[in-house]
Amino acid sequence: MKTFSEIATLLEGQAIEVPSWAYGNSGTRFKVFGTPGTPRTVEEKVADAATVHRFTGLAPSVALHIPWDLVDDYAALRRYAEDLGIRLGTINSNTFQDDDYKLGALTHTDEKIRQKAIDHHFECIDVMHATGSRDLKIWLAEGTNYPGQGDMRGRQDRLAESLRTIYDRLSEDQRLVLEYKFFEPAFYHTDVPDWGTSYVQVAALGERAVVCLDTGHHAPGTNIEFIVAQLIRLGKLGSFDFNSRFYADDDLIVGAADPFQLFRILFECIRGGAYGPDSEVAYMLDQCHNIEKKIPGQIRSVLNVQEMTARALLVDTDALTVAQEDGDVLLANEIFMDAFYTDVRADLAAWREGRGLPADPMRAYLESGYQEQIEADRVGGTQAGWS
Amino acid sequence: MKTFSEIATLLEGQAIEVPSWAYGNSGTRFKVFGTPGTPRTVEEKVADAATVHRFTGLAPSVALHIPWDLVDDYAALRRYAEDLGIRLGTINSNTFQDDDYKLGALTHTDEKIRQKAIDHHFECIDVMHATGSRDLKIWLAEGTNYPGQGDMRGRQDRLAESLRTIYDRLSEDQRLVLEYKFFEPAFYHTDVPDWGTSYVQVAALGERAVVCLDTGHHAPGTNIEFIVAQLIRLGKLGSFDFNSRFYADDDLIVGAADPFQLFRILFECIRGGAYGPDSEVAYMLDQCHNIEKKIPGQIRSVLNVQEMTARALLVDTDALTVAQEDGDVLLANEIFMDAFYTDVRADLAAWREGRGLPADPMRAYLESGYQEQIEADRVGGTQAGWS
Amino acid sequence: MKTFSEIATLLEGQAIEVPSWAYGNSGTRFKVFGTPGTPRTVEEKVADAATVHRFTGLAPSVALHIPWDLVDDYAALRRYAEDLGIRLGTINSNTFQDDDYKLGALTHTDEKIRQKAIDHHFECIDVMHATGSRDLKIWLAEGTNYPGQGDMRGRQDRLAESLRTIYDRLSEDQRLVLEYKFFEPAFYHTDVPDWGTSYVQVAALGERAVVCLDTGHHAPGTNIEFIVAQLIRLGKLGSFDFNSRFYADDDLIVGAADPFQLFRILFECIRGGAYGPDSEVAYMLDQCHNIEKKIPGQIRSVLNVQEMTARALLVDTDALTVAQEDGDVLLANEIFMDAFYTDVRADLAAWREGRGLPADPMRAYLESGYQEQIEADRVGGTQAGWS
Amino acid sequence: MKTFSEIATLLEGQAIEVPSWAYGNSGTRFKVFGTPGTPRTVEEKVADAATVHRFTGLAPSVALHIPWDLVDDYAALRRYAEDLGIRLGTINSNTFQDDDYKLGALTHTDEKIRQKAIDHHFECIDVMHATGSRDLKIWLAEGTNYPGQGDMRGRQDRLAESLRTIYDRLSEDQRLVLEYKFFEPAFYHTDVPDWGTSYVQVAALGERAVVCLDTGHHAPGTNIEFIVAQLIRLGKLGSFDFNSRFYADDDLIVGAADPFQLFRILFECIRGGAYGPDSEVAYMLDQCHNIEKKIPGQIRSVLNVQEMTARALLVDTDALTVAQEDGDVLLANEIFMDAFYTDVRADLAAWREGRGLPADPMRAYLESGYQEQIEADRVGGTQAGWS
Repeated sequence: MKTFSEIATLLEGQAIEVPSWAYGNSGTRFKVFGTPGTPRTVEEKVADAATVHRFTGLAPSVALHIPWDLVDDYAALRRYAEDLGIRLGTINSNTFQDDDYKLGALTHTDEKIRQKAIDHHFECIDVMHATGSRDLKIWLAEGTNYPGQGDMRGRQDRLAESLRTIYDRLSEDQRLVLEYKFFEPAFYHTDVPDWGTSYVQVAALGERAVVCLDTGHHAPGTNIEFIVAQLIRLGKLGSFDFNSRFYADDDLIVGAADPFQLFRILFECIRGGAYGPDSEVAYMLDQCHNIEKKIPGQIRSVLNVQEMTARALLVDTDALTVAQEDGDVLLANEIFMDAFYTDVRADLAAWREGRGLPADPMRAYLESGYQEQIEADRVGGTQAGWS
Repeated sequence: MKTFSEIATLLEGQAIEVPSWAYGNSGTRFKVFGTPGTPRTVEEKVADAATVHRFTGLAPSVALHIPWDLVDDYAALRRYAEDLGIRLGTINSNTFQDDDYKLGALTHTDEKIRQKAIDHHFECIDVMHATGSRDLKIWLAEGTNYPGQGDMRGRQDRLAESLRTIYDRLSEDQRLVLEYKFFEPAFYHTDVPDWGTSYVQVAALGERAVVCLDTGHHAPGTNIEFIVAQLIRLGKLGSFDFNSRFYADDDLIVGAADPFQLFRILFECIRGGAYGPDSEVAYMLDQCHNIEKKIPGQIRSVLNVQEMTARALLVDTDALTVAQEDGDVLLANEIFMDAFYTDVRADLAAWREGRGLPADPMRAYLESGYQEQIEADRVGGTQAGWS
Repeated sequence: MKTFSEIATLLEGQAIEVPSWAYGNSGTRFKVFGTPGTPRTVEEKVADAATVHRFTGLAPSVALHIPWDLVDDYAALRRYAEDLGIRLGTINSNTFQDDDYKLGALTHTDEKIRQKAIDHHFECIDVMHATGSRDLKIWLAEGTNYPGQGDMRGRQDRLAESLRTIYDRLSEDQRLVLEYKFFEPAFYHTDVPDWGTSYVQVAALGERAVVCLDTGHHAPGTNIEFIVAQLIRLGKLGSFDFNSRFYADDDLIVGAADPFQLFRILFECIRGGAYGPDSEVAYMLDQCHNIEKKIPGQIRSVLNVQEMTARALLVDTDALTVAQEDGDVLLANEIFMDAFYTDVRADLAAWREGRGLPADPMRAYLESGYQEQIEADRVGGTQAGWS
Repeated sequence: MKTFSEIATLLEGQAIEVPSWAYGNSGTRFKVFGTPGTPRTVEEKVADAATVHRFTGLAPSVALHIPWDLVDDYAALRRYAEDLGIRLGTINSNTFQDDDYKLGALTHTDEKIRQKAIDHHFECIDVMHATGSRDLKIWLAEGTNYPGQGDMRGRQDRLAESLRTIYDRLSEDQRLVLEYKFFEPAFYHTDVPDWGTSYVQVAALGERAVVCLDTGHHAPGTNIEFIVAQLIRLGKLGSFDFNSRFYADDDLIVGAADPFQLFRILFECIRGGAYGPDSEVAYMLDQCHNIEKKIPGQIRSVLNVQEMTARALLVDTDALTVAQEDGDVLLANEIFMDAFYTDVRADLAAWREGRGLPADPMRAYLESGYQEQIEADRVGGTQAGWS
C-alpha cells in the first residue's frame, strides 16, 4: 500500500461543489421540517456554502438552481461569493415545478410548452454568462405514470430536438450536462432513466454535452463504479451528484449508507484519470438534509468524500495489477481492501493543519458560533426551500 | 372454469372503502399540482366519495384522516354522509406532520412526545365513537435516516408500550390496525418495515389488533399474495390499502401496474375466506392521483378491484386442486390463467344494469356534469391537500 | 379498439425461434431434475422443436448452442431439420463452461485465453456458414466476483478488441448479436451488464452488430419496454430472448410472471416497426423448464407470445394518439388497457383452424401421443443438459 | 470510543462455525469449476476445517450436511475432528436434491413424500446424537415456480405439521433451526421466504425452535440488522449463515460486498446480548467459493467477522445513547462511524500473537505448505461437491 505522505499532494486542490438548495429546507412528500437558521435569500445560502469551504477547504464553489436562486444582479452575487472565497458554479434548470410541465416539458406534445421549457434553459444560459458558470445541468424529471399515457418513442425524439436547440445556444466554453434518474417523480417511465439514454442523447449533441451521474439514481443492485469507468472510457462523464441511499433516491449524506461503494467509485475516478487538476469532471453534492442540521450535514459530506478519496489513493495499483494479471482473486481483493480499511483520519487532520485548516472541521464549525449566529439572525422572512 | 352467472351473486355487496384524501391534492416531494374542482372542506370530500359510490355501487364508505378531516361536529358529518348514501369508515391517525415528531412519535425517546402521540390516538378514538367507525388505522411513519441515529431495539420496545396504551383505550367493538411499510419517509430503518414486525406487535396486543397490508409497501420482488395468505391463516389480516407501484410506494391506481398481481391477491382472499359478507377484512384504497383527475381515478380503481375479483371468482378451484395434487404444473397454471384471461367486462356491465347502476360507470360519470359542476363551484378557498 | 378480423392477417408469419437447450435438462445450481423423454442427441432436440412448430405454426426455427450442439455434419442436420419443417437459426457461442474461462474469456488478461475464445467464435461462424444461420449470438457470462479482482476498464477495452476481431470475420449477411445481463454468473461486476454497454460495444463495431434483449436480464423495476423502444429508435435491436422472472434471471415461461409486461413489450415492437415481415428482429425463447415438461412448456411459451401480440395489435392507436396529445391520462391508459383486457383466445382458436392448425395446440399435443412415444423411446444414453 | 485494550478480552472465545461444503466444489448453475486439492472424503473436509481453525483460532467447529457428509461411524468422525482440535457442529438436512422432492418435501401434497422428508430429518437427529450436535438446521428449498401451481396456504399448514413431527423427535438439549430465503430455487413463491414466516412457524413449535438468518436471503434493500435486533428481542435468533451478496444469494465471502453492513449486524448482536459466552446464537458461514481458493476463502471470511466484531465492540455506547436521547442525529452517526472507521488490524495482529496464533493468518497459511500438500496428495477419486 502507498503511504499517506506519498499521496498527500494528490489531495491538494480537491474541490467538491455544494448545492445552494442544501441549505434550504427540503424533505419528503409527507413533510418538510423547518429549522432555525435556514437561509431566506440566495445570499444567505451562498454565505452558508462559503462557511463549509472556510472550515474544510473542500468546497470552493456553489451550484445555483433557477428559478430558486433568481436574483436581479448576478454580477453582484458573483462578487458577493468571491468576497466570501467561493465561486458560483453549475447552473441547474428546473422544469418540474410549473403547472404547465405536469405532463412533460422538453418532451411535451405541445410545442408551446416545449418552447417555454427551452426558453427557460436560454434564461439559464444567460445566467451562466453572468455568473461565469461552465455547466448547464439538466435533470429531466419527465415521464409518465401509466402505461399508454404517453408515446415513449415520440417523447425521446422530441427530447433530442429540444436538447439540440439548447445545446446550440451554449458558447464554446460551456457544457450541457444531462442527468439520468431511474424513477421519481414519474412512476411508470422516465424519459432519461439510465446512463445509456443520457449517453445516446449527449453523444448525438456533440463534444460539450456530457452525462451527470447522481449516485442515488439507479436501480437496486446497480454497480455504479462500472458506469463511472464506462463513462470515463467514453469521455462522457461530466459530473457527479453525490449522495447516498438505502432504497431509492434517499438523498442522504454521501458515504453514509455504503462508504465502501463511495471508495470504489472514487477509485475508478482516480484510475480513469477523472480526478485531479487535469480532469474536467465536476464533483458535486446533491442531498436533502431532512432531519439533520444542514451546514454540518454538508461538512460531513465533503469530509466523507475527502476521506474516501484518500483511501482510494492509497491503493497499491502496481501490486494490484500484478495480482489481477496473475488471476489471484483473493490477493487482488486484499490489496484493494487494504486501502479501504486504512484509517486516514489522523493523517488528514495533520494534513489540514499544515494547510491552515482546522484539524477537525466539524468540531471547529460547532465551536465557531456560526450556527448560533444564524439561528439568532435569521428570524422572520420566508425560509428557503424546494419551491 | 366457472361461468359468470355462477359467480354473479358473489359480487353482491362488495365494498371498497375510499380515502377522503384521494380527493384532495397530493403529489411527490418535488411538486403537488393543483386541479380545478378540488374539495376545500371535509364535506366536499365526502360528497366526492359519495359520487364514486353512486356511479359504481362499490364504495359505500369513506375513510377519514385526522387532523386533515377534523370537524367540530362528527355527528353532523355522519348524517351528511348517510344522506349521500355512504358511511364514515376507518379513522387514520397522523404522527408524521408535526415538528415534534421529526425523530419519532410512538417510539420517541422523550416520554412527553410519546404521550402527545398517544393522546392524538385517544382523540382519534373519540372521533371513532362519534362516527361509528370500527377501525383505528396506524401507519407508523417513524424510523431513522442514519445508522446509529436511534436505538432500533429500544424504539421497538417503546412502540409496544405505546400501542398497548392505545389498544387498551379501544372499546370492545373497535380494532387497532397497524400498517407496515418498507421505507419512506425514513430511509435507514423504519420501525414497522414488514408484515412480520406488524404481526408480532399486534399479536402481543390481543385479538382486536390486526395488520394492514398496503400493496405498495414491500421490497422489490416480494410475493404479496403469500403474505395475504399467511396473514389470513394467522387470523391477522385486518385491512388492505390498495394501490399499485412499479418502483417504490408510487401510489398509482390499483391494478394499473400489474393487474395479474391484483388478481392473485384477490384469489388468496377468496380462497382464504377473507372475501364476502362474513369477512371482517376492510378493503380500502390508498392512492395519490398526482396527474390524473381524482374522481375518475377513484372510479377506475374500484372498477379494477371489481373486475379482478370477478376473474378470481371464476377460477375452477376443484379442477385446480386436482391438478395441484396431481403435480401437473402446467395444467394447474393454465386453470389459474384461464380465469385471469377471461374478459368479464361485458358481463359486469350487464350485471350493473340489472342492479340499477350504469353499465359503464366511467362514461356515466364523465357525462353526468358533476366534474364541470365542481370545477365551477369550487373556486376560492384553500384546496384540500396532504397537509 | 380494433377488431380481431382487422388484425388477423398481421398474425400471419409470426415466428418465434426456440432454443435447442430448452428440450434438454436444466435447472438451478442446487439440482437439475431429469425427466423421461429428454433428448439425447441434437437430432432429438431438433425433432422436439419441430413438434412445437407442427402444433403451433409459430416456431419455424431452432437456435443451436455450440458446443452443446456440435455435430460432424451440419449440412445433414440442416436437411434433417428442413425435412421436419423447420430451419436452423441463431448460433449461440459458449465461453462459460471451460476451466480456462474461469476468470474471463473475451476479456481475459491472458492473450492466449482471449484467442481461444475468439477461435471458438470463429468455429461458430464456420457452423453458421454450414447451417445458413444469420446471427451469431454472444452472451458474455464474464465478470468478477470481488471488488479489485479485475480491472473493469481494461476488460472493457479488451472486450472491444475481441469483438472487433470476431465481427470482422463475419460475412456480409451475418450479424453479431451481443446480449447483456445484469448479473450471474458473476456477482460483483459483469462486463456487459446493461443495454447501454451492449449498445456502445456494438455501435463501435458497425451496422451488422446489434443488441440482444433478454427479458430476464434487468435490475428489479426496470422498464423493459422503454429499452425496447430506445433500441428500435437507435436501429440496434437485434433479437429477444424471451422468458419471465419474478426475482432474478428465473427463466420461467414467457408471460407467466407478468403478462401485462409482455403485452407492453410487444406493443412497442409493433409501434416501432420491429414486428412483421419487414423487421429483422429475431424473437427467441430462452428458458429453463426446471420442473415442467419441456415440449408443453415451449408450446405454452409461443402461445403466450402470440396471444399478447394479438392483444397488442388490437390497440386503437389512432384514438390513443389523440388521447395522448389531449393529455387525457386516464383515457389514454383506458384505451391501452382495453386491448390488454380483451380475451382473444376464441378468435385465435378459429384463426388457427382456418390455417390447418389445431384450435388448441396444447390439447392436441397432449393427445397426440408424442410425449408417450419419446418417453418410451428415449431410454438409455445420456440425456442432453446444460453442459 | 473505547480502546482496543478495553475490548480485547471480549474477543476471546469468539467462534465461527465453518461448513464442510465450503471445502468442496460449488458454483453457479452454469458451471462448477474444479480445483486442485479439493477434498474427496468427509475426513478431508474436516481436516481443512481444522486447518482454518489452527491458523485463526476462530473456527472451532464444522457443520455437516446430510447426505453429503454421510459416514458409517460418526463416533469415529467425531474423534477424528477432536484429534484435529475441532468439534462437529450443526447438522444440516437436505430435501432439495432428490427427484421425489421436485415439487416439495415437508410441504408436499403426497403424504408418502412428506414422510420420506420427515424420516430424513429423523436420520439427521440420529446423526446429531452420534456427533453431539445441538442444532438441526433446516433450509426449506421448497416453493412453486408458477402462479396456481400449488396451494400456498395448504403448503404452510402441511409444513407446520411436518415441523411439529420433527421437533417432537428432538431431545431436550437439541434445537430446530429454521432458515428462510427470499427466493431460489423456487421462483414464484417460497414456503419460508422471510423472517416473519420462519418466526411464526418456530413460535408455534416451542422454545427450542429458532430462526436461522442467512445474510444473503433477503429482498434488495432489506435492513438486515433490524431483523437481527427484532429476532433477539423475540428470543428467536438461533443462528447466522454469514456470506455476502450484491444481487441475490451470491454466497460471496462475508464482509466482501458491504463491510459496513456486517459491522451493523454485529453491533446489534453485541448490544442485544447475542454475542459472547452466554449467547446461544450460532455464528456460521455459508458460502460458495466459486472462483477463489477455498481454505484461504474461509480464512478471509472468519477474519472479516473478527475484524468487524472488534470494530463494533469499540462503539462508545454510553456516548451513543446520550447523542440518541439528545436527538443529535449527526453526532450519533459520527460516534457510530468512528468505530467503523477505526483500523483494528494491527491491534488484532498483536492480540493473535499474544495467544500463540500467527499475526497474519492468511500469510501463515499460504507459507505453511498445506495448500501445496493437499494439491499433491488429493489426486484421483471424486472431488466433493454440492451433490
